[in-house]
Amino acid sequence: MNINDYLVKKDEKIKLSHYPASVNGKYNEKELKEKLIPESVKKLKELHMKLHAQEEKGIIVVLQAMDAAGKDEAITYIFSNLTAQGLKVTSFKKPSETELAHDYLWRFQEGMPARGQIGILNRSYYEEVIAPRVHDLLGGTPLPDELIDEDIWNVRYRQINDYERYMVENGFPVVKFFFNMSFDEQRSRLLERMKNPEKNWEFSFNDVKERQHWNGYQEIFEDILNNTSTEYAPWYALPADDEWYSRYIVSEVMVNALQQLNPQYPEIKGEEKEKLEKAIHQLENE
Amino acid sequence: MNINDYLVKKDEKIKLSHYPASVNGKYNEKELKEKLIPESVKKLKELHMKLHAQEEKGIIVVLQAMDAAGKDEAITYIFSNLTAQGLKVTSFKKPSETELAHDYLWRFQEGMPARGQIGILNRSYYEEVIAPRVHDLLGGTPLPDELIDEDIWNVRYRQINDYERYMVENGFPVVKFFFNMSFDEQRSRLLERMKNPEKNWEFSFNDVKERQHWNGYQEIFEDILNNTSTEYAPWYALPADDEWYSRYIVSEVMVNALQQLNPQYPEIKGEEKEKLEKAIHQLENE
Repeated sequence: MNINDYLVKKDEKIKLSHYPASVNGKYNEKELKEKLIPESVKKLKELHMKLHAQEEKGIIVVLQAMDAAGKDEAITYIFSNLTAQGLKVTSFKKPSETELAHDYLWRFQEGMPARGQIGILNRSYYEEVIAPRVHDLLGGTPLPDELIDEDIWNVRYRQINDYERYMVENGFPVVKFFFNMSFDEQRSRLLERMKNPEKNWEFSFNDVKERQHWNGYQEIFEDILNNTSTEYAPWYALPADDEWYSRYIVSEVMVNALQQLNPQYPEIKGEEKEKLEKAIHQLENE
Repeated sequence: MNINDYLVKKDEKIKLSHYPASVNGKYNEKELKEKLIPESVKKLKELHMKLHAQEEKGIIVVLQAMDAAGKDEAITYIFSNLTAQGLKVTSFKKPSETELAHDYLWRFQEGMPARGQIGILNRSYYEEVIAPRVHDLLGGTPLPDELIDEDIWNVRYRQINDYERYMVENGFPVVKFFFNMSFDEQRSRLLERMKNPEKNWEFSFNDVKERQHWNGYQEIFEDILNNTSTEYAPWYALPADDEWYSRYIVSEVMVNALQQLNPQYPEIKGEEKEKLEKAIHQLENE
């Protein structure tokens, strides 16, 4: 598997309707679950522990998708293996009145990782170019009228690209996953949640309502991928109908991102080393 | 193992100098690591998933101890097994100027769990009856002089007890762990961190400095345990020289706390059930 197959390249305009939601069985699920994913997660754990120990950089992970596409499961099966001190997961829902009273990035500060952490945004500031657009909600917010013109979504793409560049330049690489699930697959996953009482809790009537806007959402996701996949903050579009395969890609993309950072356990060196020797001597002769 | 052996009972004044830091080999480490802990963690995971699904109650977990007593390892080996969406870990360090400008509980809001989460406070508001007391720091804060009198620590115990009762009454049970490590054990653990370059990152020169105040800290921990272990927010004092055994106790105490709450997957019932049947019908006939 080559992670670049799922990278949305800058300037290459993709058509989501032609983009694969499945690799059609080009993998062995047993091998994935019993060998490839555990091996990948093991590498991820080691690299993450060094990131956490070094406390120099943090990674922002953005998860976006339609309901039931696999965001939560990627967190449960991949990220939940990491040591919890170096992990921060924040789920974003509808903004409150107080949040709407601020600029649209304001409420997402809460989810940003510290140096040494991976910060997962389970939905993110990308919601601000999705939900209010599908439902034409901007008029109901305290946003000044002169800011609401036809070009607002392109302006927000530029602002989001600028914001992500700012974060990257300050030591917080950004990795973004879009879970590209098919219309039919969502149907069967929603039905499973509705019919199985143990899964009812994962279901919301809102999911069925939003499904009626499927095409609108797809157009917007396509537009987002084509305008905000940058060299410094790339999008990966996952074949989300293949649950385990998508989780494997998530893990491998994270391993790759961490290998680029090449985190190291910080050693005490130089002048500090002498101070350390003295402290060891003192403690040994207590 | 009976978790009540490690419960600090209300009104029973313990002497920390007589309190065991080790159970002296009364367990089989191999059995702990390979059988008892995995079995306990499995139960914990299942209960936690229900807590997370139900989104009704959250659990506040307080970890307090001297450096190297095992707080981080309890998080790594026990809590990190839980699904990350339902887990929040916050480490607290020295307060900033802005934080000192507020009431002392203000800065700990950040670490409080949402309903459906376990929120781990890796150090907590208990620091506010420890650090400024050992080092006589209150004078340097913006606290009004009239609040700084001899009785301030007892007043804070009452305030903390009141605050914890408030949280419990609002659906957030509080479980507190004190890692009771011996003076000698800390010495050997610090030396390990100092001598092993891969562990240097866990060492801070401050740990050696604070060790010089060992007796002062022990007196304060004893006082805290004797004044803030309540029926609604009990302290457990762990024999922290026994690393794996202490982690096992942590897991079993958490299992017990969750069993008391008895969380359930929420099912769609009553009027909502009819709405669900209609939605299923609609989706099946799409």
